[in-house]
Amino acid sequence: MKKLTVVKVGGKIVEDENSLQQLLKDFSAIEGAKVLVHGGGRSATKVATQLGIESTMVGGRRVTDLEMLRVVTMVYGGLVNKNIVARLQACGINALGLTGADMNVMLSHKRPLKAMKMEDGTEQMVDFGFVGDVDKCDGQMLATLIGEGIVPVMAPLTHDKQGNLLNTNADTIAGETAKALAPFFDVTLIYCFEHAGVLTDPEDETSVIPHITAESFEKLKADGIVNGGMIPKIENALEAVRAGVKQVVITKADAIDGSKGTRIN
Amino acid sequence: MKKLTVVKVGGKIVEDENSLQQLLKDFSAIEGAKVLVHGGGRSATKVATQLGIESTMVGGRRVTDLEMLRVVTMVYGGLVNKNIVARLQACGINALGLTGADMNVMLSHKRPLKAMKMEDGTEQMVDFGFVGDVDKCDGQMLATLIGEGIVPVMAPLTHDKQGNLLNTNADTIAGETAKALAPFFDVTLIYCFEHAGVLTDPEDETSVIPHITAESFEKLKADGIVNGGMIPKIENALEAVRAGVKQVVITKADAIDGSKGTRIN
Repeated sequence: MKKLTVVKVGGKIVEDENSLQQLLKDFSAIEGAKVLVHGGGRSATKVATQLGIESTMVGGRRVTDLEMLRVVTMVYGGLVNKNIVARLQACGINALGLTGADMNVMLSHKRPLKAMKMEDGTEQMVDFGFVGDVDKCDGQMLATLIGEGIVPVMAPLTHDKQGNLLNTNADTIAGETAKALAPFFDVTLIYCFEHAGVLTDPEDETSVIPHITAESFEKLKADGIVNGGMIPKIENALEAVRAGVKQVVITKADAIDGSKGTRIN
Repeated sequence: MKKLTVVKVGGKIVEDENSLQQLLKDFSAIEGAKVLVHGGGRSATKVATQLGIESTMVGGRRVTDLEMLRVVTMVYGGLVNKNIVARLQACGINALGLTGADMNVMLSHKRPLKAMKMEDGTEQMVDFGFVGDVDKCDGQMLATLIGEGIVPVMAPLTHDKQGNLLNTNADTIAGETAKALAPFFDVTLIYCFEHAGVLTDPEDETSVIPHITAESFEKLKADGIVNGGMIPKIENALEAVRAGVKQVVITKADAIDGSKGTRIN
């Protein structure tokens, strides 16, 4: 099978002019078929503030009321997505910006009330508003486009096929895209984040764990080497591998070819 | 050849919740292949105002500095476009939102300084900023998508393939799209505007001229029946017909199937 790389980059990288330019250069240089999935949370917060709309986060996730949905639709679907597409076109990459609503590529449902641990330690039922949990990604449609030389650029928005756009976590979009494309390609999923990989010492960027498997993960957890927010990240990566993704790489944006960082499979 | 309808709707219709819902219902009911082209100027002005950005219009066209380009990218490419796409999906239409940058569908160049008549009667050289004049529309790519059952929804944004998005008149986008699709389909181009058609008496909505040809247009102009802003509109329509479009219909949004209004061919 042909090789395909799904790269997920966070808001911080795509929102700074210099890092975006470098990222798109590096992304363009990746050989073979590819997909870019982007965030944009910082820009959304900034535009919301300028519009006098307050951002409410619970457990690191944005509460999305109707006003905030308008903001993320503008920022993720328009500002960030279309700028990336135009710049990739300038790099000779035939990019196509997509939300989940476009060609019904990613269907989701509005998240039901969810019990969340609050900062004060109490548990509360939280209504995240117009936030989508993904039900289905149309891998066949994406594979057809990719087969025609198109590079999908995916914004963190899905829809419920009842006319509502839904704000959706970009990591989830990347994972679902990678899994949906696994029957058609040898998929490498690359999550770019702020560190060089999964670290044994959070203070030491050279302490990258080069390879994590389902087995070694259990030991790393038991030994307390991997903890906190890294646990669900690695669990999601292992889940993608179980679903057919060849490998997941957690790395920094300066290594989006997957040559460095932590490989999970 | 198969029939294809390109419908252009202005900002006013897509920005009011009730008229949008009716429009999408009517659009969904059009038989055969179709394309929707939308504006969004009123929303852009509103969002710009909320962000403290002043809108400057010259000769009915928006001057687009970098700040305003960000606004129209958000509003046209995100807010308006993606809402239409999500709602069409709910109507069972497999919509795909596109700017000209997506798949390099519509290439343009930044408009050079242009001599414009100002309100005080003087002529001035105007820099419209990030405004694009269209060079090329990829009809083959659009025809392939349409052949797969996809309904393109086009935002009034193009790109210069050098990384810049450019604000582009929606009437122009619709005309260029119709012309580019003429080799593949029997194209009807429908311009929705605020009147029932081209009127002999601007005060009487029943005075619609049912049919205008290149010949009758000369007479209508000479007799002063058609004047002002209608002249360039009809000239553009006749130009599209010369370029292979089967017919152009100028009508109101309540007749987007082209059953009423002024037919030009």
